[in-house]
Amino acid sequence: MGTRDRIIDAAEQAIHEYGIAGATTKRIAQRASCSEALLYKHFAGKEELFLAVLLERMPALGPALTKLRLGVGERDLRAGLVEFTRTALEFYTRAAAVAGGVLGDPPLMAGFRSMLAKNDLGPHLPVLALAEILRAERQAGRIGPGLDPGAAASLLMGACFHRANLAHFVDLPDDDATWAASIVDTLFRR
Amino acid sequence: MGTRDRIIDAAEQAIHEYGIAGATTKRIAQRASCSEALLYKHFAGKEELFLAVLLERMPALGPALTKLRLGVGERDLRAGLVEFTRTALEFYTRAAAVAGGVLGDPPLMAGFRSMLAKNDLGPHLPVLALAEILRAERQAGRIGPGLDPGAAASLLMGACFHRANLAHFVDLPDDDATWAASIVDTLFRR
Repeated sequence: MGTRDRIIDAAEQAIHEYGIAGATTKRIAQRASCSEALLYKHFAGKEELFLAVLLERMPALGPALTKLRLGVGERDLRAGLVEFTRTALEFYTRAAAVAGGVLGDPPLMAGFRSMLAKNDLGPHLPVLALAEILRAERQAGRIGPGLDPGAAASLLMGACFHRANLAHFVDLPDDDATWAASIVDTLFRR
Repeated sequence: MGTRDRIIDAAEQAIHEYGIAGATTKRIAQRASCSEALLYKHFAGKEELFLAVLLERMPALGPALTKLRLGVGERDLRAGLVEFTRTALEFYTRAAAVAGGVLGDPPLMAGFRSMLAKNDLGPHLPVLALAEILRAERQAGRIGPGLDPGAAASLLMGACFHRANLAHFVDLPDDDATWAASIVDTLFRR
């Protein structure tokens, strides 16, 4: 395992244990058994390091979107959407503490925001990718014409993101599988 | 303005400026021109104080839900839901930094979670309240039978919560009014 990967792992563990505010570069370097100077050779700052944690350690959404895209017009649509909903929920559950921590730290947030803008990245991209897939499904005739693909993508991803956040604050009464099926059945009803 | 209100205002300003991690009781007390001892007479800890910020300084959702509830079966449903969607979006935009900051701070989160459980409170309650209202609208025949009220409430509130978070990270391409209308029209199509 290379130094870069050790540092990303150490950052993920430190965030989990201490939160974003407590996940200092000193603690992360110690845990990765390297110097802070070496950490800064791999990452310009905490923003870049936390982005790497989000993109490289929580890679579930990309493959799940690809799977949906490859099944357009062919694979069982309801089953595919329910599976995607559960994957998105798991992804957001893991990502929530990192995203929340960044959001709750104004100087870190400012740096994070400008880094995303400079690199044309952002947490809105999976919503746009899902909208494209739903547009293709509508063209294939498997989704009704009354459903706006962009709005449906916002609704589905938003429900997953919100539930992932809620579950950190309270014990939710219903289980994830039942919830995911009811979300898909309500949103894509014809 | 009483001491308690001064402290809550100071806490909201301090969170906005320094984030949750930097909003120490020392800074908050200074800004409220009181001693830390006096702050702790009003609030058992940061958890209780931040909950007061959320409940007492961002009170938009309660009245908006009441307005929807009073209009069941009578008021223009689409207009009411679009207005509610925009209010929820504004509410979550303001609340995002506080909720995110709590989520990103594991010890604070643990205290917050147990305080919510003890008092039967939580960020899931507005979703349950909206589900009740949608159930009543369905009974009144203004929402189709294929729409599960609980799922629809999850979808609508989730979309607002997610968009509020996204807007902190990136500049979104579409405006809020257009977005809110498309969300409501897609979710409640018949």
